[in-house]
Amino acid sequence: MTNLKINQDIQAASTPLATLLSPLGHRLVFPPDIPFQAAQARGKTFNATIGQITDGYGKGLSLPSIESGLSGLEGEDRNRAILYSPVQGDGTLRETWRRWQRRNIPDTVPSSLPLVTAGLTHGLSLVADIFGGEGRAVVVPTPFWGNYRQVFETRTGAEIFPAPAYKDGAYNTQAIPDALSQLAPGRPAVAILNIPSNPGGYSPTVAEREELVAGLLGAAEERPLLVLCDDAYAGLVFDASIPRASLYWDLVGRHPNLIPVKVDGATKELSFFGGRVGFITFPFDPDTLVAAALESKVKCLVRSTIGSPVASSQRIVLASLQSPEVEEEAEAIRLILEKRYLTLQKALKRVDTSLIRPLPSNAGCFTLMELTAEGIHPETLRQHLLNHHDTGLVAIEPHFVRIAFCSVAEEKVEALVHRLEAGIRDLLP
Amino acid sequence: MTNLKINQDIQAASTPLATLLSPLGHRLVFPPDIPFQAAQARGKTFNATIGQITDGYGKGLSLPSIESGLSGLEGEDRNRAILYSPVQGDGTLRETWRRWQRRNIPDTVPSSLPLVTAGLTHGLSLVADIFGGEGRAVVVPTPFWGNYRQVFETRTGAEIFPAPAYKDGAYNTQAIPDALSQLAPGRPAVAILNIPSNPGGYSPTVAEREELVAGLLGAAEERPLLVLCDDAYAGLVFDASIPRASLYWDLVGRHPNLIPVKVDGATKELSFFGGRVGFITFPFDPDTLVAAALESKVKCLVRSTIGSPVASSQRIVLASLQSPEVEEEAEAIRLILEKRYLTLQKALKRVDTSLIRPLPSNAGCFTLMELTAEGIHPETLRQHLLNHHDTGLVAIEPHFVRIAFCSVAEEKVEALVHRLEAGIRDLLP
Repeated sequence: MTNLKINQDIQAASTPLATLLSPLGHRLVFPPDIPFQAAQARGKTFNATIGQITDGYGKGLSLPSIESGLSGLEGEDRNRAILYSPVQGDGTLRETWRRWQRRNIPDTVPSSLPLVTAGLTHGLSLVADIFGGEGRAVVVPTPFWGNYRQVFETRTGAEIFPAPAYKDGAYNTQAIPDALSQLAPGRPAVAILNIPSNPGGYSPTVAEREELVAGLLGAAEERPLLVLCDDAYAGLVFDASIPRASLYWDLVGRHPNLIPVKVDGATKELSFFGGRVGFITFPFDPDTLVAAALESKVKCLVRSTIGSPVASSQRIVLASLQSPEVEEEAEAIRLILEKRYLTLQKALKRVDTSLIRPLPSNAGCFTLMELTAEGIHPETLRQHLLNHHDTGLVAIEPHFVRIAFCSVAEEKVEALVHRLEAGIRDLLP
Repeated sequence: MTNLKINQDIQAASTPLATLLSPLGHRLVFPPDIPFQAAQARGKTFNATIGQITDGYGKGLSLPSIESGLSGLEGEDRNRAILYSPVQGDGTLRETWRRWQRRNIPDTVPSSLPLVTAGLTHGLSLVADIFGGEGRAVVVPTPFWGNYRQVFETRTGAEIFPAPAYKDGAYNTQAIPDALSQLAPGRPAVAILNIPSNPGGYSPTVAEREELVAGLLGAAEERPLLVLCDDAYAGLVFDASIPRASLYWDLVGRHPNLIPVKVDGATKELSFFGGRVGFITFPFDPDTLVAAALESKVKCLVRSTIGSPVASSQRIVLASLQSPEVEEEAEAIRLILEKRYLTLQKALKRVDTSLIRPLPSNAGCFTLMELTAEGIHPETLRQHLLNHHDTGLVAIEPHFVRIAFCSVAEEKVEALVHRLEAGIRDLLP
């Protein structure tokens, strides 16, 4: 398998997708070296291919002090936690996560077998490497999670085009198409769709989703457009009228120029932050040549950035997903967040809007506030809150602060808002 | 902190090090965004900085089905396994690994606090990003682990210069300086020193180490030279006359133009392949400005490639390193490998050297063999062994095969060698 062959497979499936590949994306192909040769030797009586230390019959020779940390996993589960994962991730986990992702999604909507990554950010960085690169336009609604800049711009040399996510304090469904319309027609672009959003904590309503999709379909008339769905906070929605499903599913197969790519994971969906289990999913059926070609590219990059994804937390996530209680357990955490969210919204209703204006929030882990008082700089306010009010918030340029209610106890929420107001008042000229 | 400031700190400590930075290496600086702001807010009564789901008092809200997979860790250990790791890695683990690395190393030899990576390969890819890049010369003794090519060349555009690791069947201590001497004087270069080697399974003798160090010091007369010590197999030595310590320690502080960087980890040293816990260490004391500057660059890249290193396996590795038995446990595994190694060497003494010539081997996980019979191609042989001898080996161009005795039971070793010989005989013209 050469990169020529898989690039042809990509071209045959979708010319816009081929156009969107970065120079590095073009070069990538999973090489026929050790993991490839080891995969072929699996099951042979004499298998001397792979450099991991086993008893010679597939069981890892492990330190008792390592085993003891993994004693929550039994037998073969524990053994697989100790040995290398396949580069693409554990096969059973991939199938299981695919079913988890596709709850309530019609069978007719295609999606690939997700590839396992070392957390969500690793998925983003793989997309940035394969579809970013020098000069590639990347539209990102503002304010945005600062790491997008490092992932795309600092690392790959892509050019970030900020697009205002709010207009007059309301969610702006046309942020991405408006920003894209400034680019020369035909210029390929990436757009990041982070719903529920960070730092916004917002998920669009049914009507807004329709406008959003229509806007992206319109933009795809003009150029090859890769929509990176950063679904980190998928499912964390606190308003019964707001759809919980990822917008990804509304974009698959809707326009030949529009390629949605889904990045999601156990980090927030299963509240397992330290496990670093993420996934990357393409809008093609698992048995297609184009899915295989993209898988080869991702595998080449996973192998050359991290070797293989972490096996131990994959087994822990798999065991969790196989538990009959997993949906209830995740829902229990969502409900805790919902209570905090409601308490926070109640407190924010009473804030002095000459100091701060809360932006619409109904989802995710955060609420974003605009500083409305003249002359209050978010970084100055942050330092002041740290030093004089025993309070830590995140400052976001040019005039926002973010409250992460996901890490604040419900009984502290109201006092936190009071401290924020008091801190601003201290700084008023 | 700007990249200008940290680049000055690097320049002030070592002009050759500053010269060795890639364009991306130049741009990197850990930004003052969420992890930075969250670090400042640690310990505050009201801390609403970080997007992980906690009870508001520092304990992760986790799924019982995830907790159960981590039940081998108790209390705060388990909690830390569930929440995000600091981007640079767990502080206690970093201190503990530093002591582990520096067993028997004099206090006068400087080394930084190791930064945690997602396994060894991630450490290599960070070095490749910071010191590789378009056109950078990278000397690699051949035959080499194929992934070096993807890590440096495919991903960053560096130029690989192969250097023969063996000459007339003996280890060639001058491989790197000989290859470097072809480059224009002054051209900065990276050299990869993988000892014990993969696929060679070789660690130099005392006399060879002296030659090797002298050769590298000589080469550093001509150019800034970053020596990447890939210490994946550190300590796995099966000949009592061969030093077990990493050659890294012999290179630190030896020449202003020579910058050794150590990449090591728990993968092989603690036989925890699936855990993905690696480390990157610089030859500067932890409290120096240059160590802080390099740490800022690595953190920026860790954050933008994987977010943060895996917390759960860091806690498992830390618990293992804190166990009073860890050295004995690691030694027990080394002894199992040593027995296989001795059995393999015995079997190889009797092979028909008109078919194969074993190359010198005394360490690591592998033994390398040269195919001496005319017209036997390693890939053809590999396929034939898979299909007709129920045996998997790794084929390495142009005329080598590699036996991974680390994954072959001792009682199978002799039969494996017989099958290899039989397979070659089948294919003789």
